[in-house]
Amino acid sequence: MSEREDTAIEPTSERLTELAKRRGYFFQSSGAYGGVGGFYTFGPQGAALKGNVEDAWRERFAVAEGNMEIDAPTIMPEPVFEASGHLEGFDDMLVECPECGESHRADHVVEDETEYEDAESLPVPEVEDVIAEYELVCPNCGAGLAGQAVETFNLMFATNIGPGDSQPGYLRPETAQGIFVEFPRLKEYARNQLPFGVTQIGRAYRNEISPRRSIIRTREFTQAELEYFVDPETDEPDLSSVEDVEVTLYPASEQNAEDGSEIEMTIGEAVAEGIITDQWVAYFLGVAKPWYEAVGVDMDRFRYRQHLSGERAHYASDCWDAESEIDGNWIEMSGFAHRGNYDLSKHAEHSGDRFTIFRQYDEPKTVERATVDPDMSYLGPEFGGNAQAVVGKLEDLAARDRSAFDGEAVEIDLEGESHELPVEKTGFAVEEQTEAGEHITPHVVEPSFGIDRLVYTVLHHAYREDEVDGEERTFLELEPEVAPTFVGVFPLQSDDELEAEARDIAADLREAGLSVTYDDSGNIGRRYRRQDEVGTPFCVTVDYESIEESEAQRASDDASGDTPRANGGVTVRERDSTAQKRLPIDDLPETLSAIRAGDLEFEEL
Amino acid sequence: MSEREDTAIEPTSERLTELAKRRGYFFQSSGAYGGVGGFYTFGPQGAALKGNVEDAWRERFAVAEGNMEIDAPTIMPEPVFEASGHLEGFDDMLVECPECGESHRADHVVEDETEYEDAESLPVPEVEDVIAEYELVCPNCGAGLAGQAVETFNLMFATNIGPGDSQPGYLRPETAQGIFVEFPRLKEYARNQLPFGVTQIGRAYRNEISPRRSIIRTREFTQAELEYFVDPETDEPDLSSVEDVEVTLYPASEQNAEDGSEIEMTIGEAVAEGIITDQWVAYFLGVAKPWYEAVGVDMDRFRYRQHLSGERAHYASDCWDAESEIDGNWIEMSGFAHRGNYDLSKHAEHSGDRFTIFRQYDEPKTVERATVDPDMSYLGPEFGGNAQAVVGKLEDLAARDRSAFDGEAVEIDLEGESHELPVEKTGFAVEEQTEAGEHITPHVVEPSFGIDRLVYTVLHHAYREDEVDGEERTFLELEPEVAPTFVGVFPLQSDDELEAEARDIAADLREAGLSVTYDDSGNIGRRYRRQDEVGTPFCVTVDYESIEESEAQRASDDASGDTPRANGGVTVRERDSTAQKRLPIDDLPETLSAIRAGDLEFEEL
Repeated sequence: MSEREDTAIEPTSERLTELAKRRGYFFQSSGAYGGVGGFYTFGPQGAALKGNVEDAWRERFAVAEGNMEIDAPTIMPEPVFEASGHLEGFDDMLVECPECGESHRADHVVEDETEYEDAESLPVPEVEDVIAEYELVCPNCGAGLAGQAVETFNLMFATNIGPGDSQPGYLRPETAQGIFVEFPRLKEYARNQLPFGVTQIGRAYRNEISPRRSIIRTREFTQAELEYFVDPETDEPDLSSVEDVEVTLYPASEQNAEDGSEIEMTIGEAVAEGIITDQWVAYFLGVAKPWYEAVGVDMDRFRYRQHLSGERAHYASDCWDAESEIDGNWIEMSGFAHRGNYDLSKHAEHSGDRFTIFRQYDEPKTVERATVDPDMSYLGPEFGGNAQAVVGKLEDLAARDRSAFDGEAVEIDLEGESHELPVEKTGFAVEEQTEAGEHITPHVVEPSFGIDRLVYTVLHHAYREDEVDGEERTFLELEPEVAPTFVGVFPLQSDDELEAEARDIAADLREAGLSVTYDDSGNIGRRYRRQDEVGTPFCVTVDYESIEESEAQRASDDASGDTPRANGGVTVRERDSTAQKRLPIDDLPETLSAIRAGDLEFEEL
Repeated sequence: MSEREDTAIEPTSERLTELAKRRGYFFQSSGAYGGVGGFYTFGPQGAALKGNVEDAWRERFAVAEGNMEIDAPTIMPEPVFEASGHLEGFDDMLVECPECGESHRADHVVEDETEYEDAESLPVPEVEDVIAEYELVCPNCGAGLAGQAVETFNLMFATNIGPGDSQPGYLRPETAQGIFVEFPRLKEYARNQLPFGVTQIGRAYRNEISPRRSIIRTREFTQAELEYFVDPETDEPDLSSVEDVEVTLYPASEQNAEDGSEIEMTIGEAVAEGIITDQWVAYFLGVAKPWYEAVGVDMDRFRYRQHLSGERAHYASDCWDAESEIDGNWIEMSGFAHRGNYDLSKHAEHSGDRFTIFRQYDEPKTVERATVDPDMSYLGPEFGGNAQAVVGKLEDLAARDRSAFDGEAVEIDLEGESHELPVEKTGFAVEEQTEAGEHITPHVVEPSFGIDRLVYTVLHHAYREDEVDGEERTFLELEPEVAPTFVGVFPLQSDDELEAEARDIAADLREAGLSVTYDDSGNIGRRYRRQDEVGTPFCVTVDYESIEESEAQRASDDASGDTPRANGGVTVRERDSTAQKRLPIDDLPETLSAIRAGDLEFEEL
């Protein structure tokens, strides 16, 4: 993460945060106890929006792609993070102010006040030197920080599992480890066939030193990750469905150039020109862009930025972030990385379990294997208790370097001492074996999405202010796919008959699968404003004319025993234009469902 | 929790656990590292089933009831749990074996080996005495436990928030606190009107001393909770929709009786006879029973059990558990409690924030208020630095006992000493005030569901073994509403044409909103068995006849430019009966959707 994110909050963000709190999108948690930095609660509107975004992600990245979704615990035992490298390396540099006691990220202090751009990659002593040399001060109270120790702080939340000599555990810093660690079982569900993908949507935790900017950098957040396992030699993506997708790219070369800038091209062109170097990464960038557009990210404020070589993990061959622009700053919403076989091979190494897939050869192969079968009646007297160790040494040597057995004698190293023994006593032989395939460690391509940051972007990009009939209005131009409510239904005023009719309409619309809010409190203008502010695309208002028309029609119907449904007209108002049209009650479920499905436009009515 | 849950696992559970692991329902997490007790991962089938159960809960308890759903963090700061009582009282009694070092729940050791039935309610020294007196031994290694200290162990997972002098935080032991603590804001979203309900589905954590029985008692689990806030004086539920629901009840009186047993009656009768004492609790019991039935709990193995007076929290006026029978034992799946105003008043007391709702009087009331307005020119010289404290004392006294001001002098207590001062210097007066209403602390009714235990029950109650064509078969008779997959689509054998047709059919069924699995690996019998074991209600098989019929029809159609869709027949097989019927391809989406919606039976085809 770079300092681009940490500049001051601009007006739209401030107004959005106020609206989010007032209308039930999100607010800082435990406010009654003063709140805690980095923890936010999604209110009724926010939980609905977030749930809709998660469902849309699931639909696109799990269901449509044919991937498996799993649900793993958020607490994992220490060995998992020893293997993943989080225990050792997942930390930030911390400097504490000697005066006010506030802790700051030392790399941020350096980046904000010097020409250093990637202070995170500097060694700790060097950061201490820079702080002293530039006489940097506490951003909070202005006290000098020179001479203060810079310490590393692990960002995982630690806890203990069980009583007594309890076992250390950590809240996962990413959902991915819950997938990697279960690979030996998951591959069975995929019937041992590559490629296959596993997704997970769930909580992840990072004990940030300075959480900030609302829900953009929190300590507890929701990720949606896909780990796509491929055979690095034989699997290639079918790019035909994404090659024409147009994207805004900000490649490393442009970031490094004096006058570099974003470039527009198709995924196909970017691959052909070698700008996106990995085809799997290109495939997922192509899938993600229209998806981001569908959930409401403004495509004029969206780009894919390639990681600079210093930013990229050493094992990642290519990595791009999807970024959105928020008040002039670019924030990271997701990352697309080719991680090689790093994760699986680390877990294999640490656990001793098999994190491989058997790759069948097209035809069985005949291979030569060097073996030994030592003469123990010679080794026993010669090496005593070390005889078995010698056998091991000979086996290793035969597998590694069969030429060592070319001469009369073979040399082995035992507890630091060199020993020679006659080759004829080793039973060395080279045999032909037929093998049907080999065990390979799959590579993994990882599209990793931050849901909270996306929710924030969607709200920010949907935030509008205009003037209606001389009055200022705020509204959220949310896409129907993610809006918490699709239609609000109101009786024009407080009246039993109007209310009954409006409730019936609301029930019918719910029956049709639409998300509906019924509201009868306050004047109609105030109710419109409320729905505008939560981003409800349509409102339906029942008035006295609706009832009269219904009654007239009911009177002209044959009495069939059941009371026939009324079919007067109601007013349907569109959020963005505030245009109003009159529609028959009976047509509402079908008409609004068609609009919801994108098969009909309000203007066409 | 009573010892009923902790008896040995019976055969069906064992076989279910094996199937669950093999077919991707659930398995112990981090198996590559030996696993950790109490942590399970839901595989692809389990995550889908669990998600479907959560969606069904949301639909019934949030959407249909008009309640708000929120999404709060799982880590909460210490003051929340000081207020809720979890920090002080949420613990189990622990005894450690001096020989093998294993920790056990002391109350369970006592209950298993003595006549004590509710050892959890005994004080610690008494449990130590019982262990010594009965010479109880370690259930693991048989060593004597007499003389070992019994210690209390808090079941919350603890962590630290932030660096430096970090703030203690805990993983929430129930989702409920994330609702209670935000009441001051949530009531705004409810426009300060009671009753209203707030739901949350999310993770909760309990650091169990001995997690056991698969996913029935884990350390990390999913809860779905509804906190329904009511005015205790004016709000009453409308029981008309639930009064005819028939339930199996096991009231406290029957549990205490020598030959007591479950009784069958309607919710209406149980309320009328005073068996269910709280009407709100009765309402939610009535709502929950058909819901449990719809998601697949066997109603012959389901009951509502009332808490005994010793089990119930002191503030709860009535409490019932929904229980399911698993291999002869009853396990708790959910609790329905009337919690009074305990939670909100505790948070009000600890935070100083307002956890009240303003209840408007029908008409403004005129009330008398006693006030003081002391003469400071008298109090100052008389009491010095304590003058302000004296004012406070006088205000308290006036509000509490205005008769104290009836005489010439009034007596107050200051730092343990009694002082008298003339009433005329206190400015005591009784004034009439008009008040529009009063601030009341709502009561809360809490239906609290454990999702993992329900998932386990649904699987257990759906587990079947039978014989088909002389071969043993295992299948899960899951309800279509929760089954991970509704229909499997297969080409009869490996053949490009069959596979293309089957993939087209799968796509059409997905388009119709059904959950579909395509499978072309292994012989057809094996594929049926696979779908039987994951509980897929229907399978569709495409054979050569399907293709021939389609081609014949295509040939007879007018060439309209587009290729017309084929419409041969396919075999549709029902899971439970294994009956097979031939249906036209084109009819599949409509027919299967109608069956899924419950509007059509397979037998009627």
